[in-house]
Amino acid sequence: MTVSGIVAYPITPFAADGTVDHLALHRVLDRLVDGGCSAVAPLGSTGESAYLDLTEWTEVVASTVTHIGGRVPTVVGVSDLTTHGAAERARIAEGLGADVVMALPVSYWKLTATEVQRHFEAIAGAVSIPVMVYNNPATAGIDLAPEQLWELVRDVENITMVKESTGDIDRMHRLRELSGGTLPFFNGSNPLALKAFQAGAAGWCTAAPCLIPEQVRDFHAAVAAGDDALAEERFAQIRPLLEFIVARGLPTTVKAGLTLTGIAAGHPRRPLLPLDDAEAEELSRLLTAAGVG
Amino acid sequence: MTVSGIVAYPITPFAADGTVDHLALHRVLDRLVDGGCSAVAPLGSTGESAYLDLTEWTEVVASTVTHIGGRVPTVVGVSDLTTHGAAERARIAEGLGADVVMALPVSYWKLTATEVQRHFEAIAGAVSIPVMVYNNPATAGIDLAPEQLWELVRDVENITMVKESTGDIDRMHRLRELSGGTLPFFNGSNPLALKAFQAGAAGWCTAAPCLIPEQVRDFHAAVAAGDDALAEERFAQIRPLLEFIVARGLPTTVKAGLTLTGIAAGHPRRPLLPLDDAEAEELSRLLTAAGVG
Amino acid sequence: MTVSGIVAYPITPFAADGTVDHLALHRVLDRLVDGGCSAVAPLGSTGESAYLDLTEWTEVVASTVTHIGGRVPTVVGVSDLTTHGAAERARIAEGLGADVVMALPVSYWKLTATEVQRHFEAIAGAVSIPVMVYNNPATAGIDLAPEQLWELVRDVENITMVKESTGDIDRMHRLRELSGGTLPFFNGSNPLALKAFQAGAAGWCTAAPCLIPEQVRDFHAAVAAGDDALAEERFAQIRPLLEFIVARGLPTTVKAGLTLTGIAAGHPRRPLLPLDDAEAEELSRLLTAAGVG
Amino acid sequence: MTVSGIVAYPITPFAADGTVDHLALHRVLDRLVDGGCSAVAPLGSTGESAYLDLTEWTEVVASTVTHIGGRVPTVVGVSDLTTHGAAERARIAEGLGADVVMALPVSYWKLTATEVQRHFEAIAGAVSIPVMVYNNPATAGIDLAPEQLWELVRDVENITMVKESTGDIDRMHRLRELSGGTLPFFNGSNPLALKAFQAGAAGWCTAAPCLIPEQVRDFHAAVAAGDDALAEERFAQIRPLLEFIVARGLPTTVKAGLTLTGIAAGHPRRPLLPLDDAEAEELSRLLTAAGVG
Repeated sequence: MTVSGIVAYPITPFAADGTVDHLALHRVLDRLVDGGCSAVAPLGSTGESAYLDLTEWTEVVASTVTHIGGRVPTVVGVSDLTTHGAAERARIAEGLGADVVMALPVSYWKLTATEVQRHFEAIAGAVSIPVMVYNNPATAGIDLAPEQLWELVRDVENITMVKESTGDIDRMHRLRELSGGTLPFFNGSNPLALKAFQAGAAGWCTAAPCLIPEQVRDFHAAVAAGDDALAEERFAQIRPLLEFIVARGLPTTVKAGLTLTGIAAGHPRRPLLPLDDAEAEELSRLLTAAGVG
Repeated sequence: MTVSGIVAYPITPFAADGTVDHLALHRVLDRLVDGGCSAVAPLGSTGESAYLDLTEWTEVVASTVTHIGGRVPTVVGVSDLTTHGAAERARIAEGLGADVVMALPVSYWKLTATEVQRHFEAIAGAVSIPVMVYNNPATAGIDLAPEQLWELVRDVENITMVKESTGDIDRMHRLRELSGGTLPFFNGSNPLALKAFQAGAAGWCTAAPCLIPEQVRDFHAAVAAGDDALAEERFAQIRPLLEFIVARGLPTTVKAGLTLTGIAAGHPRRPLLPLDDAEAEELSRLLTAAGVG
Repeated sequence: MTVSGIVAYPITPFAADGTVDHLALHRVLDRLVDGGCSAVAPLGSTGESAYLDLTEWTEVVASTVTHIGGRVPTVVGVSDLTTHGAAERARIAEGLGADVVMALPVSYWKLTATEVQRHFEAIAGAVSIPVMVYNNPATAGIDLAPEQLWELVRDVENITMVKESTGDIDRMHRLRELSGGTLPFFNGSNPLALKAFQAGAAGWCTAAPCLIPEQVRDFHAAVAAGDDALAEERFAQIRPLLEFIVARGLPTTVKAGLTLTGIAAGHPRRPLLPLDDAEAEELSRLLTAAGVG
Repeated sequence: MTVSGIVAYPITPFAADGTVDHLALHRVLDRLVDGGCSAVAPLGSTGESAYLDLTEWTEVVASTVTHIGGRVPTVVGVSDLTTHGAAERARIAEGLGADVVMALPVSYWKLTATEVQRHFEAIAGAVSIPVMVYNNPATAGIDLAPEQLWELVRDVENITMVKESTGDIDRMHRLRELSGGTLPFFNGSNPLALKAFQAGAAGWCTAAPCLIPEQVRDFHAAVAAGDDALAEERFAQIRPLLEFIVARGLPTTVKAGLTLTGIAAGHPRRPLLPLDDAEAEELSRLLTAAGVG
């Protein structure tokens, strides 16, 4: 099982009564796969996994894996505040057919290097499938340096991939250097998408294909073809949209954008509130500018 | 979606640490489908659904529906002590792709006819897929007369099937009579399997195919061919085994029998304890007599 | 810690949104204590413990123990379908200050004698406080003979009391005989209240004091004073009410009766439905006949 | 109900099997009350509330409120990632007898001002008791300016207190100014303890009394007596310890310190790991320097 290219992050749609809306989820997944993404990554930050209880989380894993049906690999987010919770999620994801699990060291308290190491060992030890470790200090409150990420890959058998979301291109160069080019690393910073591919990233982790799957696919095609000028041009067209959805929060903006583009995905869970009218208008304008419709 | 013939009830295998063993579950499901059953019914009494928490229950629904992959219909047990819990399970089952949900009015307290009616209306109202109502006073503590079962089918749009486990053949005749032969009813009493088919039952709900799938299939083939003599002969051969597994408890005996026949399915959850040596020997003898090995 | 006399069973009041109504619970508890009961037993059948999730159950334990504040002992019901769940409830109850835990072998499947024994050993092993074992085949589906109950008391250190609800007076005589008069046994069958005391019962477990605390107290006072004629007279006056609340279901009737007597205790949880108007009128009549108002 | 002075934060002790250790919790609570603290605040960051499930959280609320028994007010932390979860915790805390609830706007995603406002309104709307809003951007990822905190107090009836943990003394002056001196605000930054009292803080929220209750009490007595020189002297003695426990993480260090001072409080929950030997030695040295033993 290899993951590369565009790793797309679906939101988790809720029905009006707050339960998981499986039909809407299936429509989003189909848009991602039909739009040419290379893998689907449910239950990341975008998927509001932090706001789901364990049963809801399990529903979404199952619904995603089953509906994808092997068309592309699934990379399931298993981050949890406790080590027990993250390992449990990893076990369930594997049992339900996930191809890869991904974990961010979210923890209420700052963690020492040893605590991070033991945390990921426990997650990896709970499964036989590959684990992707994920660094995103803005969200997790902990920053894993390239050296620490590489040590996890080197020392733990089934930790085989890294996702880097700091937006610091030097870290990507460093990861390539440390691993002698053997480590597949993924970029999770939308503004860095082009530079990261140029630095050797195996893929781009992004929620944007929920709204602009073809545009993301075409950008990636230009990258893959080595046509830097075309890639830059295509990236420039979608960049304002990318910046808006990141700045205003992915679940909120992507759900609003889905509704604007024909998939009623409901609202984010509170404390998150839907976009107000002015914001929705701005989003609509940015979608048009990015080539939608 | 139509269900008929042999509706097979898988156990829920647990790993040594008590978690759901998905690989063992998949092996059991394959034995059922490969052995010719017409539908699979996870999370009935046999599936220890009463001993699972909601996340585990959701795991088993998902694992079953995904692994079956449409080879046969799935009939998912959603019984719960509260109406809210049963309706919630029904909603999840539908979301994860179940074809039918089945519910028994298990309730700590005795229910009035109106309470039973409202309970099933709530379950049926939570889904669009067909609902099978199930009468088993020995387990539920409430006995639903054929008239009440028929009224539920007649009055609630998506309640379309009945399972009867009293072992009283007159009730089957009465159900046929009340519905003018239009109601698919299923027999859940193992000793009554032959007579129920003769009385017009659409199917036999049984855990026996976990252990003797071919023997159950061949019995049903004789029934379907109208060869009563052969059916009786085949039924006579498996009947002692059927009686043993019912008398000593389905999760306990079927798990022991799976281990004896090559699928390590673990132990039932406590308070249930595994068979002791003498009981396992008796089961082994009965399996051989039924034609296994 | 000794329990004897009237062991009163409070219902669990719910607010209109379905959450536990702590203020109403406190009013019920005060009525029980002020009315002269000797102990309070939350989370029995009457307390709808089978319909509560573990957090709600924990809320009710805590609210009861704190509000009682040592005025009388608390006997907390910890019955659960799994051994793990029952032992967990026992541990929580002890941690929150319960004086005694009580358990009924509720189990979806019939249990062998060994399974019952191991189940109670696990519950008793989880705590240091006394355990009361409870036999009620009509509810649990399993009948524990006096011999088996006595063996549990004899063999497990902190199993020290028995509650018997079959309504068979011979079992009480037998328990006295087996234990040489050393075992405190409690009667849980309302119609048998007088005879059980005469047979040596240490107490009467009953929800009736929620509605008629003084009448139950006065009956018990006559019993305690050895005035059989007065006891019989007083029992005769309340017996029709006792029979009605048992026959129509304790949570349903006791909640209706509380509302009729000035404590808004809400409705039982579905599938249970409130009394209809005719039933409420009948209950009102029986309350008056029993001496209320 | 008024809170002021030393608001002490207990840890949540776990037994070796990971369950809540109520007896150890009671010993910690007694140390806090006997040591002269003015209020007890369970289930804050120090109490590892982020790592507890809802049942465990409820156990700790109940155990604390009951064991404190009105000796001092209780201020229960109800922070949760979702608005529903925080409001539910607030409702339970009030039901179990808490005097005040406190909430931090922890949310996986950044919140807008309106989202923060609606979140706190929902919490306050779930209870009748006072709510303390809490600003700690280092933990919550969101910074509430004094103006926003004051608006919450001004606009929502039962939001009546503020806790400020930025360590920025100017914010305290600003809170006093905005409210015309009417708002009780509390300092949650240990190094700022003295300055905050001098700026008019109503109290100091701190876990330090778990380890050095008398020293904290004596420091506060000097503050209350207006003896700045003595207060500074006493603060200087404990400051190195305060800095160590904050820097290395409160649950980890306070649990280690409790064991060093005679209360076996167990380990923090993973991913947190216990102090290593060198750290424990350093802590021991700092405890001695602070005047312990």
